[in-house]
Amino acid sequence: MEGMSDDLAYDVFARACPSRGTLEHVTGRWGSLTLGALHDGTFRFNELRRRVDGVSEKMLAQTLHALERDGLVHREAQQTNPPRVDYRLTPLGREVAERLIGLIQLVEGRMPQVEAAREKYDAERAAPVTA
Amino acid sequence: MEGMSDDLAYDVFARACPSRGTLEHVTGRWGSLTLGALHDGTFRFNELRRRVDGVSEKMLAQTLHALERDGLVHREAQQTNPPRVDYRLTPLGREVAERLIGLIQLVEGRMPQVEAAREKYDAERAAPVTA
Repeated sequence: MEGMSDDLAYDVFARACPSRGTLEHVTGRWGSLTLGALHDGTFRFNELRRRVDGVSEKMLAQTLHALERDGLVHREAQQTNPPRVDYRLTPLGREVAERLIGLIQLVEGRMPQVEAAREKYDAERAAPVTA
Repeated sequence: MEGMSDDLAYDVFARACPSRGTLEHVTGRWGSLTLGALHDGTFRFNELRRRVDGVSEKMLAQTLHALERDGLVHREAQQTNPPRVDYRLTPLGREVAERLIGLIQLVEGRMPQVEAAREKYDAERAAPVTA
C-alpha cells in the first residue's frame, strides 16, 4: 500500500485502506461531535442526543454503533428497571477525542478570522475587480 | 448561545452556530484529506486529485471552494499559458491542518487496535452469549 510515509502500513489517502473508514467515523458530521461530547464523561442515549444538538435518533444510533465497533466507545447496559444504557469512551476513544477537542477548540477560537474571510470572499465575488 | 464552556462565544455543539459548518468543512470526508494533503505543500488541482484518492472532480472543486471561502486555502491563478492554478494552505489553514495530521497519524497508528475491536464486535454479534 502506498503510504504517506514509508514506515506507515495504513494510509488514509488510499481509498481502499481501512483507516479511511475509521477516519470518517471519527471526523464525520456526527462522529466528531459525539466523541467530543463523550470527552466530558458518561452519557445515556438521550443525554447525548440533547448534547449533540440536531442529531436524529437514527443517526446517533448509527454513529454510536460504528464508534463502538471501532473500539472507541464502550456501551454498557445497566441491569436496572427500566433498563439503562450508558456510553463512554474507551482509552483509545479518549486519545482520539483529545485530538478532536483540540481541533474543535481551534476552530471555535478562529471563527472571527473565518467569518472575516467569508465576508471578504463573498464581497469579491459580488463585485469582481476587472482589469 | 449555550457554550461548551462559558468563555467561548462559538459552540460547535449548537446546531445554529457558524462554527459547526466550518468544522464540517474541515472534518468532512474530503475536507480533512484535502487539508491533510496540502499540509505537504502547494498543489495544482489535478495533483491534489491524485493525492486524495477517490475524490471526484466535482467534490474536490466544492471542497476547495468551501475551504477557500473559510480562509483556510489560498487559490492562486498563475498568469501562464496554459493557465495554472495553485492551491496552498493559509497560515490559518496550516494551524488546522497540523491538528488534522495529528489526528490522521493517530488513527493510522491505532488501526491494529481498531481492527481487533471490529473482529471482536463482529464475533460477539455472530455468536451471542446467552444467559
